[in-house]
Amino acid sequence: MTRTLPHPVLQALVGDEEAGAFFSNEAELSAMLRVEAALADAEAKVGLIDVAAARRIAEVCGSFQADWTKLSEGLARDGVIVPDLVKQLRAAVGESYGKSVHLGATSQDIIDTALILRLKSVTEILGRRLDTLIHSLDGLKRRDGAVRLMAHTRMQQALPFTAADKIDTWIQPLERHRDALQNLAPRLLVLQLGGPIGTRGELKDRGDAVADAMAGILELGFAPSWHSQRDRIGEFGSFLSLLAGTLGKIGQDIALLAQNEVGEVRLATGGGSSAMAHKSNPVPAEVLVTLARFNAGMLGILHQALVHENERSGAAWTLEWMVLPQMVVSTAAALSRAQTLVTGISFVPGTVADH
Amino acid sequence: MTRTLPHPVLQALVGDEEAGAFFSNEAELSAMLRVEAALADAEAKVGLIDVAAARRIAEVCGSFQADWTKLSEGLARDGVIVPDLVKQLRAAVGESYGKSVHLGATSQDIIDTALILRLKSVTEILGRRLDTLIHSLDGLKRRDGAVRLMAHTRMQQALPFTAADKIDTWIQPLERHRDALQNLAPRLLVLQLGGPIGTRGELKDRGDAVADAMAGILELGFAPSWHSQRDRIGEFGSFLSLLAGTLGKIGQDIALLAQNEVGEVRLATGGGSSAMAHKSNPVPAEVLVTLARFNAGMLGILHQALVHENERSGAAWTLEWMVLPQMVVSTAAALSRAQTLVTGISFVPGTVADH
Amino acid sequence: MTRTLPHPVLQALVGDEEAGAFFSNEAELSAMLRVEAALADAEAKVGLIDVAAARRIAEVCGSFQADWTKLSEGLARDGVIVPDLVKQLRAAVGESYGKSVHLGATSQDIIDTALILRLKSVTEILGRRLDTLIHSLDGLKRRDGAVRLMAHTRMQQALPFTAADKIDTWIQPLERHRDALQNLAPRLLVLQLGGPIGTRGELKDRGDAVADAMAGILELGFAPSWHSQRDRIGEFGSFLSLLAGTLGKIGQDIALLAQNEVGEVRLATGGGSSAMAHKSNPVPAEVLVTLARFNAGMLGILHQALVHENERSGAAWTLEWMVLPQMVVSTAAALSRAQTLVTGISFVPGTVADH
Amino acid sequence: MTRTLPHPVLQALVGDEEAGAFFSNEAELSAMLRVEAALADAEAKVGLIDVAAARRIAEVCGSFQADWTKLSEGLARDGVIVPDLVKQLRAAVGESYGKSVHLGATSQDIIDTALILRLKSVTEILGRRLDTLIHSLDGLKRRDGAVRLMAHTRMQQALPFTAADKIDTWIQPLERHRDALQNLAPRLLVLQLGGPIGTRGELKDRGDAVADAMAGILELGFAPSWHSQRDRIGEFGSFLSLLAGTLGKIGQDIALLAQNEVGEVRLATGGGSSAMAHKSNPVPAEVLVTLARFNAGMLGILHQALVHENERSGAAWTLEWMVLPQMVVSTAAALSRAQTLVTGISFVPGTVADH
Repeated sequence: MTRTLPHPVLQALVGDEEAGAFFSNEAELSAMLRVEAALADAEAKVGLIDVAAARRIAEVCGSFQADWTKLSEGLARDGVIVPDLVKQLRAAVGESYGKSVHLGATSQDIIDTALILRLKSVTEILGRRLDTLIHSLDGLKRRDGAVRLMAHTRMQQALPFTAADKIDTWIQPLERHRDALQNLAPRLLVLQLGGPIGTRGELKDRGDAVADAMAGILELGFAPSWHSQRDRIGEFGSFLSLLAGTLGKIGQDIALLAQNEVGEVRLATGGGSSAMAHKSNPVPAEVLVTLARFNAGMLGILHQALVHENERSGAAWTLEWMVLPQMVVSTAAALSRAQTLVTGISFVPGTVADH
Repeated sequence: MTRTLPHPVLQALVGDEEAGAFFSNEAELSAMLRVEAALADAEAKVGLIDVAAARRIAEVCGSFQADWTKLSEGLARDGVIVPDLVKQLRAAVGESYGKSVHLGATSQDIIDTALILRLKSVTEILGRRLDTLIHSLDGLKRRDGAVRLMAHTRMQQALPFTAADKIDTWIQPLERHRDALQNLAPRLLVLQLGGPIGTRGELKDRGDAVADAMAGILELGFAPSWHSQRDRIGEFGSFLSLLAGTLGKIGQDIALLAQNEVGEVRLATGGGSSAMAHKSNPVPAEVLVTLARFNAGMLGILHQALVHENERSGAAWTLEWMVLPQMVVSTAAALSRAQTLVTGISFVPGTVADH
Repeated sequence: MTRTLPHPVLQALVGDEEAGAFFSNEAELSAMLRVEAALADAEAKVGLIDVAAARRIAEVCGSFQADWTKLSEGLARDGVIVPDLVKQLRAAVGESYGKSVHLGATSQDIIDTALILRLKSVTEILGRRLDTLIHSLDGLKRRDGAVRLMAHTRMQQALPFTAADKIDTWIQPLERHRDALQNLAPRLLVLQLGGPIGTRGELKDRGDAVADAMAGILELGFAPSWHSQRDRIGEFGSFLSLLAGTLGKIGQDIALLAQNEVGEVRLATGGGSSAMAHKSNPVPAEVLVTLARFNAGMLGILHQALVHENERSGAAWTLEWMVLPQMVVSTAAALSRAQTLVTGISFVPGTVADH
Repeated sequence: MTRTLPHPVLQALVGDEEAGAFFSNEAELSAMLRVEAALADAEAKVGLIDVAAARRIAEVCGSFQADWTKLSEGLARDGVIVPDLVKQLRAAVGESYGKSVHLGATSQDIIDTALILRLKSVTEILGRRLDTLIHSLDGLKRRDGAVRLMAHTRMQQALPFTAADKIDTWIQPLERHRDALQNLAPRLLVLQLGGPIGTRGELKDRGDAVADAMAGILELGFAPSWHSQRDRIGEFGSFLSLLAGTLGKIGQDIALLAQNEVGEVRLATGGGSSAMAHKSNPVPAEVLVTLARFNAGMLGILHQALVHENERSGAAWTLEWMVLPQMVVSTAAALSRAQTLVTGISFVPGTVADH
């Protein structure tokens, strides 16, 4: 089984192959095609277009080969990839049914829904990893929980406690994050369908019916159009940053406990140095701190995009595109690094006896 | 009834008297005294200290006059105000019961719980204001909803719609924020009690009983100590920024619609200019944008404090103190400015007819 | 000599009395009055107003007692304090010369110039403190430089070096910051004078002459109006954050070296704990980290205000007001805390011998 | 001549091919090889290694084919790509001279210097683009400068002025940025060489001589090792954000002036809509706003990395890697989009006559 090379290579350190895959060009196109097909299917169901048109559109979407150069030029020109995609799709569908493609929809319907479809998978992955990590921390607690450590407050030794006490402070917020993920999923994982100005007006009196059918087909929740209401995206970003922050705190703790002078945590394997053969660096622990600080800052950018002018802000929306995928991937990476770290450490009785 | 002058005077523009009052020195001290009294009361209830001691402590806390100069010097020296406060309190309580003051607690128990007590009031205020604002927007929709406007996407005219369509995009996220506030309150509004290293260890085997009694007295939820788990604070910050962001979007919309060339919104009264008598500036609308961008960025700082080293991080905790109160006050201010704005605007048929 | 109590008391920990004083209501008013007087003086010099008018305005500005309640209401209404101030000033000057007050200027001229006047003093204070701190670090190096320490990379022991090596890494960036401050001062410390739309158009053909005279009177540099060009402010914010960052790095190093297990730095005095009498917390070191992270994040907000719509953005300008003073005060505080810290530490031979 | 497809495709909108190329895996490797060869060359010059060794190393570096899978695994393990690269290089150089590879250097020497080499080219590109943009704005001013426009303050019409007045406010900060770039280049474009703990200690008494020779070979400035002093990087980030902010302000102005209702700027070509054939969206103008806000926030993250623990912080350094390249590319993109925009707009007499 060959693994593809991360691109850029820095992703080998801070990226995540599984989560990153959802933000490849191919994954985005595939999700957009799924949305266009579902739109046509829903419109056929409510009688806005012919069933044969929907069938033809589904067929084309299922095997569509995009002209990426044109898509890319279209994106640069239109600020959004959909106009050129729709043009290509209509040509592929053919003259008889071409005008049934994308009927009554706007670019944002396709892009936002295609994002949400992928975020649905992302939330499942994050949920699974959270479960696994909590499970591993429980195991670590069972195995090493009785080890006596020195608690530290304000960077100074405080009083003795146990590894179990420490591990509890790591597990508890993770459990809250797991609950939070379950709670936010129904709010986040909803269809976007509004048409050009968010009113479903181009779908005549059948806008809600189309949306309802489309949500059913895509297994997303129904919601009124939320083109210019970006709180869902902002809330999900907050979740990611909170989770990355908790993991960053775990990383910081481990890096501090693994200091040679402290030695209360031993790492399975550390990173090597090009100059000092004796060193064993707590690389994944440091990376967790990096990813926490990165996400915290990125969240501050993502929330700038809440100020979304009028019915669609090109400026604010594009800002989301630059930020959210990076937050998803780096938070998934943090979960993965934390898992590696937690399964590789052991607690070692420290200098407690001296005090 | 005299109103005090805001300090600094900029608070007249971006501050909020009612919310700001919770972060005055006096309000913080008062909340800390309430927490110390509740701690003693709870400890008496479970038999850790004499009932007479608790009574004496309650009495002293109820009428305590702090030496603020010493508190301030203590804060500069200890990084936290509590050690000097406890010293003063013990002296005031007197020798017989002095050692029963603050028994088994640590500074963070007092400060965090005193914060949460005030955030409880803050959430009630925010909730009430959200209700009122939504109510006013409903009224605006009833009155002006039928006015035909031009929808704008990407800073260009799109298609006509109605004021009701526009107002709906403002109300819907506010309703979600109102629900979110109700959902987060039980997570946020919990006691902090852990003792020096967060284990309730100094309270012998009665730590949970003390915490349970104390939570009951203070009408907060029970929770294990969360000294180093700052996700509650980070989550509340996210809520504030999301809310401020939604209000900023409303402000941005109104500023754009109130442009002379657009003229689809008329402001009751505008701000004057020192140089141009003819101008009527959309000051509260602009301020909403300011407060949204401020909160978004502050959230990016607050989440940096999630990386809380070991059992207590002076660096991270102090960062929260610098950021969270400003987020609370400026979000409350945004709700208040939005209320003023919304009750003062009227929608005016725009240039729709031309298209 | 009594010291006033910091307000809020947290300023005792993270604030700076000397720098903070420039952002009091009184200091801002005083600077604005100085600017109005200089404007009148300059206008008299070039013949735009009577010399007697300028003299009367100077006299009134020199002893003016503002109605702060009205100023504060004016600020809330107009978004800027100047319109009401000018109204009060004109009334105080009297009918004959009242219209010579603020002639051809706009609020932003007064406020920005009043800010720059105070930043001039601020840069002098920062420069002096930088000199003192570098001097103290030189002294520390002379005294303790030969102490053998363990260098640490990636949170692990690397190789032995000396305290002098360590101190050099602290001094070098401070020297660059000192140079940077000298370089940026002429760019930053310039007059703002543009009139309502930044063209000096209301000053007829004597706009540049007025600006030139006014710059001379106020001992500021001459520049074209920069109402909507906020790079000067953004650049100064960058300087503050870079400086605070360097100081935060020093604080972080000291907190790490002062860990009980490392013990390579000894603090003169540490902060006390309310629960653990044995502790000596590295409070100023931690605060330096806090102030660095605070400034870094605040810079990210300040630069959002570079997107300044058209000839004056109320939203962006107000954001500067909320952010820049806090950056100035907290950076000045960081210099002051660093000074305390550096003069109180001593280096102690560490565990080097073990390796 | 074929253009490669941007990856991800979003880069077609917000990326920059020319600047982005410096951050490809290949470009980074190539720069690192150049640094290793220069190190060997310098060490041969001062007599630390054989001239033949340096020659062999240069030869190998000139034609080296890396095993990217191993590099990527090494990066994930060691937190830095250099240890594995050095291993591969030594193997390629062969046994006799292998130990002369990377002698006395540390990973950070190679990576930081390889970054600076590329930033040198980046600064040249940015400088050229700034010149071109200023030139184009001068041309626009000559052509359209006399057009009468309405100035706008606080989102309201203020007073009439001319396109030349407006364009001046765009050119002036760009000229300052051009000067700033020239001023910062000598500070930024310096060698990094310190060895494992930044003291050049492994190079015996010839550390400075090696650094001097190496700086000469690479045409960079000489400086003491700055491993843990990240102000150079932070300062360059500030420059990028200031520049992007100025361009964002231009974009915001153009988007506002190009509103249908205002119509004072006409765009050569606008972006199309998937739903509204009549629309012409100001895509590059909006993207400038996006890139400004993105850079402002990223700067807030980059400055978090100034808190660099001890002699090397894995956490802080990795954070730079995640942030700085994105700032470079997006600022370069902003210059390019601004160029397109400026050469495509024309000013149109607005509604001035009505006032």
